[in-house]
Amino acid sequence: MSAKSRKIVDVLNGKTISPPPLWLMRQAGRYLPEYRATRAEAGSFLDLCYSPELATEVTLQPIRRYGFDAAILFSDILVIPDALKRNVRFEEGHGPRLDPIDADGILKLDGKDVLKHLQPVMEAVGRIRGALPEETTLLGFCGAPWTVATYMIAGHGTPDQAPARLFAYREPKAFAHLLDTLAELSADYLVAQIDAGADAVQIFDSWAGVLGEKEFSEFAIKPVRKIIDSVKARRPQAKIIAFAKGAGLFLKTYRQATRADAIGLDWSVPLAFAAELQKDGPVQGNLDPMRVVAGGAALDEGIDAILQALGNGPLIFNLGHGITPQADPEHVTRLVARVRGENR
Amino acid sequence: MSAKSRKIVDVLNGKTISPPPLWLMRQAGRYLPEYRATRAEAGSFLDLCYSPELATEVTLQPIRRYGFDAAILFSDILVIPDALKRNVRFEEGHGPRLDPIDADGILKLDGKDVLKHLQPVMEAVGRIRGALPEETTLLGFCGAPWTVATYMIAGHGTPDQAPARLFAYREPKAFAHLLDTLAELSADYLVAQIDAGADAVQIFDSWAGVLGEKEFSEFAIKPVRKIIDSVKARRPQAKIIAFAKGAGLFLKTYRQATRADAIGLDWSVPLAFAAELQKDGPVQGNLDPMRVVAGGAALDEGIDAILQALGNGPLIFNLGHGITPQADPEHVTRLVARVRGENR
Repeated sequence: MSAKSRKIVDVLNGKTISPPPLWLMRQAGRYLPEYRATRAEAGSFLDLCYSPELATEVTLQPIRRYGFDAAILFSDILVIPDALKRNVRFEEGHGPRLDPIDADGILKLDGKDVLKHLQPVMEAVGRIRGALPEETTLLGFCGAPWTVATYMIAGHGTPDQAPARLFAYREPKAFAHLLDTLAELSADYLVAQIDAGADAVQIFDSWAGVLGEKEFSEFAIKPVRKIIDSVKARRPQAKIIAFAKGAGLFLKTYRQATRADAIGLDWSVPLAFAAELQKDGPVQGNLDPMRVVAGGAALDEGIDAILQALGNGPLIFNLGHGITPQADPEHVTRLVARVRGENR
Repeated sequence: MSAKSRKIVDVLNGKTISPPPLWLMRQAGRYLPEYRATRAEAGSFLDLCYSPELATEVTLQPIRRYGFDAAILFSDILVIPDALKRNVRFEEGHGPRLDPIDADGILKLDGKDVLKHLQPVMEAVGRIRGALPEETTLLGFCGAPWTVATYMIAGHGTPDQAPARLFAYREPKAFAHLLDTLAELSADYLVAQIDAGADAVQIFDSWAGVLGEKEFSEFAIKPVRKIIDSVKARRPQAKIIAFAKGAGLFLKTYRQATRADAIGLDWSVPLAFAAELQKDGPVQGNLDPMRVVAGGAALDEGIDAILQALGNGPLIFNLGHGITPQADPEHVTRLVARVRGENR
């Protein structure tokens, strides 16, 4: 336990803090010149993820520049498929590529070396925690099984993850096994991150929005609940944020059914509804990342609307999705100051 | 007025019909061998859209094969930008391309020749109506201004239409002008389709789901309401279906605020919520198109769930988005029979 209180952990415990603490999804990223410099030093994108030294450096860069209330481990949701030998690679301008998996491949997945493969990540977590200011929360993360599975099946991103939806209809047993496998490995991975120094963790389900009702329950809720139950059984103090992008109509159920400590909201969630969700517990979000690119009045108005609607309850201020490479770092300076009440 | 009743028009007038009438979004499309044959005869995709003879042929193909309760004019939502000289072209495997427009370009848009340019479409509508069985509804359509604008600004499709969202923040006046222009032209276009023989029309807002709250109100609701008001002021009997894909949490407001006669639902809308929406008026949807690709139990279960939840109110059975090229035509045969109670 730290002597100084960590605001984001406090919010995750249900506390309302004014002004709200903040961090930005993908805050260590290509919009920062110092990130691009470090990225150029590393070999591949995965080399950067697996270098404790470089991953630590890029994780700390936005903290040095902006003093966010949380650092989030620099890594990728596809390190688990990579550890499962799915030949993950990141090609410039093309997004991730993997060897597509079939039902037979799923049955042959062997997770026994996954944590060993991911040991450099845990080393990075330890280094980051050691280097961070006492009051800064350190977040670990993983991809949600559904989202990770969509990439494993298609072998790349698609507009609506139709290949995984189709696979799940055609091969329900193999697909359930894949989600189970990913849930177990993800829980172990999050526990290891917590043990290495993460104060809390986030589960990213970026593709939750393409699911029908029954599939949302089976593919988005069930495996995330499994992860949360498993992590909390072993680390009862662990705090978990679940972010199901595009889950709109399912969000109320999602929070209750997954037992996440906080839920992340994308920018399409109306603020009056977000305030309803906040009555059940902390929320995180939900500024449109394009407002950060635009800057000016579009940025200020978006920030103010969130603070007004959600500022009187437990809120972690954040974007509704990751910050994009085209965002001007000066706009982020403006955002941080405005959330903190320094230029309102 | 026709001697025989057209079931889909009846549902649009609030009637409950059992079994529900059905058609499929993109029912005239690449999954059909006869479509691919006609497509090969035409030059470009737009040549096909603008050939009254060929557009009539492909519109009628799925009616001959399946006896759907509605034919939908074969065309594309980008014919209006094409008529506005935005250099629209369809490259195999790449989706649509246009010359991206900027604020100056928007102010220079000149709609005076649009209806003249689209005259072949109206000729196709007349031919189709003449060739259709008396009891088959003929649907016209247009793209919603927001969705059409996203393509006009980016010059192509993108994963979350970030270019248009950004443009709207940066150039709110020019963007409002673009939406206004598109709404006016779309209303004129729909009136012309109705006059040419369309029984009802659908407005497709495929990208409504990427909007924040205020933007949904300004970009998705307001222009569609404007179209509907304009069409109904001139053709009071006109029936209009509005389909805002991904609009989840906004759907209740969307129906009320646009005054659409029926709303289309994508496959992510939970059926209990769809039944709530149906209390306010007819709904259309919402089978996951991947269930049609999968066939078998996945197809049957999806159909049965919709019929059970929504079959006792005004329902037009449809998919939650367009049928995909990989769908097996035999699965569509099975779907039609099952909806009509012939193999349940």
